[in-house]
Amino acid sequence: MAQARPAGASWANYENIMKLQAAHFIDAQRLWERHMHMAKYGATPAGGVDRQALSAEDIQAQKVLLGWGSELELVPARDAAGNLFLRLPGLEPGAAPVMTGSHMDSQPTGGKFDGIYGVLAGLEALQAIRAAGIVPRRSIELVAWMNEEGSRFAPGMMGSSVFSGSSTLDSILSIKDSRGISVQEGLEKVQAAFPLVPLWPLQRPVHAYVEAHIEQGPILESESYSIGVVSGIQGKRTFSVSLQGEEAHAGTSRRCDRKDALMAALQVVQALSALCNDDQDIVKFTVGRFQVKPNAPSVVPSLVEFSIDLRHPDSSVLQSLGDQVELLCAQNAGPCKATVRELSNAISLQFPQSMRTLISEVAQTQSISCMDILSSAGHDARYMHPICASGMIFIPCAGGISHNEAESANASDMANGAKVLVETLLQLAA
Amino acid sequence: MAQARPAGASWANYENIMKLQAAHFIDAQRLWERHMHMAKYGATPAGGVDRQALSAEDIQAQKVLLGWGSELELVPARDAAGNLFLRLPGLEPGAAPVMTGSHMDSQPTGGKFDGIYGVLAGLEALQAIRAAGIVPRRSIELVAWMNEEGSRFAPGMMGSSVFSGSSTLDSILSIKDSRGISVQEGLEKVQAAFPLVPLWPLQRPVHAYVEAHIEQGPILESESYSIGVVSGIQGKRTFSVSLQGEEAHAGTSRRCDRKDALMAALQVVQALSALCNDDQDIVKFTVGRFQVKPNAPSVVPSLVEFSIDLRHPDSSVLQSLGDQVELLCAQNAGPCKATVRELSNAISLQFPQSMRTLISEVAQTQSISCMDILSSAGHDARYMHPICASGMIFIPCAGGISHNEAESANASDMANGAKVLVETLLQLAA
Repeated sequence: MAQARPAGASWANYENIMKLQAAHFIDAQRLWERHMHMAKYGATPAGGVDRQALSAEDIQAQKVLLGWGSELELVPARDAAGNLFLRLPGLEPGAAPVMTGSHMDSQPTGGKFDGIYGVLAGLEALQAIRAAGIVPRRSIELVAWMNEEGSRFAPGMMGSSVFSGSSTLDSILSIKDSRGISVQEGLEKVQAAFPLVPLWPLQRPVHAYVEAHIEQGPILESESYSIGVVSGIQGKRTFSVSLQGEEAHAGTSRRCDRKDALMAALQVVQALSALCNDDQDIVKFTVGRFQVKPNAPSVVPSLVEFSIDLRHPDSSVLQSLGDQVELLCAQNAGPCKATVRELSNAISLQFPQSMRTLISEVAQTQSISCMDILSSAGHDARYMHPICASGMIFIPCAGGISHNEAESANASDMANGAKVLVETLLQLAA
Repeated sequence: MAQARPAGASWANYENIMKLQAAHFIDAQRLWERHMHMAKYGATPAGGVDRQALSAEDIQAQKVLLGWGSELELVPARDAAGNLFLRLPGLEPGAAPVMTGSHMDSQPTGGKFDGIYGVLAGLEALQAIRAAGIVPRRSIELVAWMNEEGSRFAPGMMGSSVFSGSSTLDSILSIKDSRGISVQEGLEKVQAAFPLVPLWPLQRPVHAYVEAHIEQGPILESESYSIGVVSGIQGKRTFSVSLQGEEAHAGTSRRCDRKDALMAALQVVQALSALCNDDQDIVKFTVGRFQVKPNAPSVVPSLVEFSIDLRHPDSSVLQSLGDQVELLCAQNAGPCKATVRELSNAISLQFPQSMRTLISEVAQTQSISCMDILSSAGHDARYMHPICASGMIFIPCAGGISHNEAESANASDMANGAKVLVETLLQLAA
């Protein structure tokens, strides 16, 4: 790490000053205001955000981010999977970069902090490094991953999984949203919006990855910690289930003759729910998407398609539960035909102890309270973990509420997260 | 009834010849081909029809009907509720007309016969009367009622209920479809399409109403009858239920903290289904529409809205079951809030014996086999019944399948229905 010696600093206390000087430039108000500005792109009447991946709102938000990056003279780049990068060049351009970031897309009724906090905290960190006059040895790159949420195009974490080589570009291009628009068409729109931003290759070497995020749970707030040092991410399996029945007239068809896909789906979901009903309330079982066809009041439904989101911190429990899904669907489908497709199967993971120790020490140096915490939600860090030393920094969110328009966080916690992030990045880039 | 004496007929056998001469002009092939032509407007890839009320396809189909009416020199008219009329003028223009018809709108995945058969059989009857050179005493009017199905705008039978005064025009104008388009906007589109067709008043006097329709059930086919003389229509109550919960993150929110609207809806629907589970399989209970919000895989659903279609031939059973809906919803909503709105409550009805006898006799005179049958489905005749002598003629449909793209009927049964219809209309108009 090379920088000008701060005025008035002797070489003796140089190291301590260096450790804190970037964090000193974190500006809580600027960070907050950037969140409020970004929340305009996809703003919902109820105060939330609907900014789904590759949408017009997503592109607008990316334009704003590129503008802020340009003011800081960061180097913009994209890749073929729709990920966006802003690089602060280091002294050794050939060395693998340190990355930080998260995602800018939201749920259909999402909040102002999920994902975008990690992007804007990363930008704040780069701005603070610039302001401190520091040029790190390794380049530090801010990344905004494409489609973390998976609400428009399933599954989520698409950009990071393709970047890291966990899935291929080809495998995502033909996936379509509910209106029949493909990821490929969406990517072409983004490409057309940013013709001058160079395309960098997928699967570039990365030295380390640190992602800041709101907790999306109640623990940090209720335990009064400003920072969570994330120990790992609980495992998650996702499925798509369809039940095929037969349309019939609601007034004339007898119950015994019906192949009612909705009634079959109810039986199936209740059987799955019973399977996942553990006394300790650790299993997370959610049917979030549920579509009925033809969806007309006087027609017996012929088709139901629904999603399963199944999570558990213990990979063996997760595997056992997930492995029973297909059989339970078949057994409870009655006269209908059940088809189960597994969309993703991610086991629980632990971030390396060295990364967790570094983040804790950086927090302690700044007297910012921190605790270890398991991430119940999935994050792009899951896909960076196999290719480089990765970790995450959580900040509290109000009431643990997330994936909800009422999602909130406070400016002081947000700034603390950025302070821990910037010093962690500088240590990793040294 | 006045017409030229058929060549070669003595006045002695005049009455018998008269009774059959219109039926002789019913053309099975023309009737079939008109069905196939109409099925082009809203044709679905699976061979069905999606021609919902006041849609562009509905307007196209009405244009075709007006064209056919014009060839027969029928007098076209509309009313403010979007109903379409084609009048064959009688000898006494001031006498209340005899009406026949049905609807041209379909379910989203409907068939080629539901509704449109009654309209085209009516047109065939008028064409046969013209061909026979008969001028009846009363005018005979063909009607195509607006929005019988109620799939785009709920509830159904809108046009006939407003025409007959069972509901007011004002009460339907602000009803919106799922895209937010109102009935009023739809009616304005229809009005713009037919500026030269005069508007006749609502609630005009009608002498009698006869509606031909496919059975939409399996009885006529399995009993090998060509015609069903409809004794009455079973009662129906419809409801809209909403369950309000709270969005939460699928990976982080604990089951005990969730207000999962989907899980609440499953409990509610199962409780209602159990209530309606009679040993004799007479109660018809259907949840045909079921909408989930925000409908994203990793978000706990915050809102479910679903429809209830409840029918029973015994009005006291229907009232008793329907009266339990609201309480059962509240009792089974768990942590969510249930709101129940009743959309319609129609008791079972019986058509007048005189009309049923007339239809039976007309069929017997023509040696067309017929049986009495209860209509399990609702029809526009329900709303004409309170204002004039009304009845219905059913023909078989293949396998009893309806509200399904596979719906089918055969040309010979269709022609038999039109033969019985035309002679019934002539008797009523005499």
